[in-house]
Amino acid sequence: MDHFRRIGQLRRRLTKAGLQGLLVTYLPDLRYLSGFTGSSAALAITRRTARLFTDGRYIAQAAEEVSVAEVQIVSSSPAVAAVQWLAAQPGVECAGFDPTQTTVANLARYKAALPSHLRRNFLAALAAPLVAPLRQIKDDDELALLSQAALAGCKLFEGILEFIRPGLAEFEVAAELEHQARLLGAEGMSFGTIVASGPRSALPHGHASAAKLPRRGFVTLDFGVILKGYCSDMTRTVYLGKPKADERAAYEAVLEAQQAGVAAVSAGASCAEVDEAARGVLRRAGLAEAFTHSTGHGLGLEIHEAPRIGANESTRLQAGMVITIEPGIYLADRFGIRIEDMVAVTQNGGQVLTPAPKALIEL
Amino acid sequence: MDHFRRIGQLRRRLTKAGLQGLLVTYLPDLRYLSGFTGSSAALAITRRTARLFTDGRYIAQAAEEVSVAEVQIVSSSPAVAAVQWLAAQPGVECAGFDPTQTTVANLARYKAALPSHLRRNFLAALAAPLVAPLRQIKDDDELALLSQAALAGCKLFEGILEFIRPGLAEFEVAAELEHQARLLGAEGMSFGTIVASGPRSALPHGHASAAKLPRRGFVTLDFGVILKGYCSDMTRTVYLGKPKADERAAYEAVLEAQQAGVAAVSAGASCAEVDEAARGVLRRAGLAEAFTHSTGHGLGLEIHEAPRIGANESTRLQAGMVITIEPGIYLADRFGIRIEDMVAVTQNGGQVLTPAPKALIEL
Repeated sequence: MDHFRRIGQLRRRLTKAGLQGLLVTYLPDLRYLSGFTGSSAALAITRRTARLFTDGRYIAQAAEEVSVAEVQIVSSSPAVAAVQWLAAQPGVECAGFDPTQTTVANLARYKAALPSHLRRNFLAALAAPLVAPLRQIKDDDELALLSQAALAGCKLFEGILEFIRPGLAEFEVAAELEHQARLLGAEGMSFGTIVASGPRSALPHGHASAAKLPRRGFVTLDFGVILKGYCSDMTRTVYLGKPKADERAAYEAVLEAQQAGVAAVSAGASCAEVDEAARGVLRRAGLAEAFTHSTGHGLGLEIHEAPRIGANESTRLQAGMVITIEPGIYLADRFGIRIEDMVAVTQNGGQVLTPAPKALIEL
Repeated sequence: MDHFRRIGQLRRRLTKAGLQGLLVTYLPDLRYLSGFTGSSAALAITRRTARLFTDGRYIAQAAEEVSVAEVQIVSSSPAVAAVQWLAAQPGVECAGFDPTQTTVANLARYKAALPSHLRRNFLAALAAPLVAPLRQIKDDDELALLSQAALAGCKLFEGILEFIRPGLAEFEVAAELEHQARLLGAEGMSFGTIVASGPRSALPHGHASAAKLPRRGFVTLDFGVILKGYCSDMTRTVYLGKPKADERAAYEAVLEAQQAGVAAVSAGASCAEVDEAARGVLRRAGLAEAFTHSTGHGLGLEIHEAPRIGANESTRLQAGMVITIEPGIYLADRFGIRIEDMVAVTQNGGQVLTPAPKALIEL
């Protein structure tokens, strides 16, 4: 990971924002910028230098992981130490902090730790996030890790197809999938595994329950693994038994919507256009009301990142973004269907990172 | 769960704090007070009434889970709606919010949504948390669930002893343990499972890695399950092969410290006294420096709750608290040992909820 390049890009944004310093306390941002994976740290950045503050548990780990910043071990709060250090840097009159990731109580602590003449104006709430726009655009190292995580997801899906059968509890399917994920080397799952079967497939977020897989009906599997910090996310909906005509027709509509969404992905397209590509298909199939969520989201170090692929999102896709395309329909007390891929945005369209089959699988 | 009693207790604290209303956005607090388990909601409480705001995904779930408050479905931010509702209640001149759980950005959003004459003074940062002190004292329903989760942990430990053998990767042990936890009905693990073997046992938080279990050496297992929302937490350190004399002596010192800590637990004892009971044993064994963390912590809906069992904590234990007692020693590049029980505080001492054997197990 080229942390020096990332810090360089951040400094240009910092200068544009009229700030001489930045406090980074949000751990995914901090990991992105410095490589540090510990659970307690703060990163202080000026136009010339950067320093990471952490505690004694992480002496060895910080030395090993962080080359882009000096490391200082502190026995009190890393964030307070970072604020005090920023205030002591020559030429730093004002340092930004992220108001969406800073609690009211912590801001008060930071201010109380400053010399009194700096309390009022030294810390400035960022008007717009500075790190999130960088994190949206994945570099080659990140694309490789995301692809690897996505392929691990496909492999798990292939394996779980052999395991699924009527009568198993949903949580037994989730347990098997998560067990295999661990054995593949996943650090964990990106989120609570969703196994929603029969009428429960109509719950968009039906976490695996004790409900038994039916002899006949849909099973939605939505899951992801974390590999080297990067999250995968995919959904497939399969059928146990023989689908009825209306079920098959609904599946085909969702698949068509999902493919239209993927086909709309390209650098320069707006998120709203991609959403509409998928949503329009379902609308024309009379299923507009049944598609109750947005079409997708960015992902990377976190399972949900910018951008959001939704109806009112004017953000334009850029090459290097990685997003999900996941339309679904939910018919209460009947069934639900969702199909989701991870897609990397390129200049020439979208590259699907999750090449598992999408034609309806009957088990 | 007697949510009405909890809200009643909270109202008495609210009155004492001179507030007429309270905004609750922190999800574990909200679940504790109302029973709601969804991922997006806000709870507004006045001296007479309570209302839970959530979105359309949770219509059915909120109706099923929440009886202590009216439920209102909103299409925008539940927290903003809750603040506006509080401001419209007769007699509510000032509503508290938790500054440790409210971001600077959200507070600005709440204020912007208020009528201009209320922006300055309507919302008041709580000087001390109101819900956390209630959550510390577990009621009978909670004690039953925590005991059930703790016993599930013991069962998993018993099972994993059959599985552990030299040459397995640490993550394979974690995978097996987590798989069995799922099959026992756990919703998930309380935290990333720690399996730290050989010299890695000297890492207090050595998450299960690809390192292979040695033919001869300690293996520390620290794990917990979530059952019906409640977290368990236990640690055992076992030995593969035949321990050397110094290893056995170190184990006996940690065990003695752990037992002394448990024996010191009683309503009325201070957290510092309990910490010292364990720490003193290790100090007298010349291992003071090797015990690098505090002795324990409360747990319940979250894996870390008040109180903290540490050297400078004057808080006195009360009947109904559930805490961990987990002294450990860490000798870099050599080995580490930690033993941890969950203990319920009673008037007559501590009741161990994790009765798995603690004498050194040689495998």
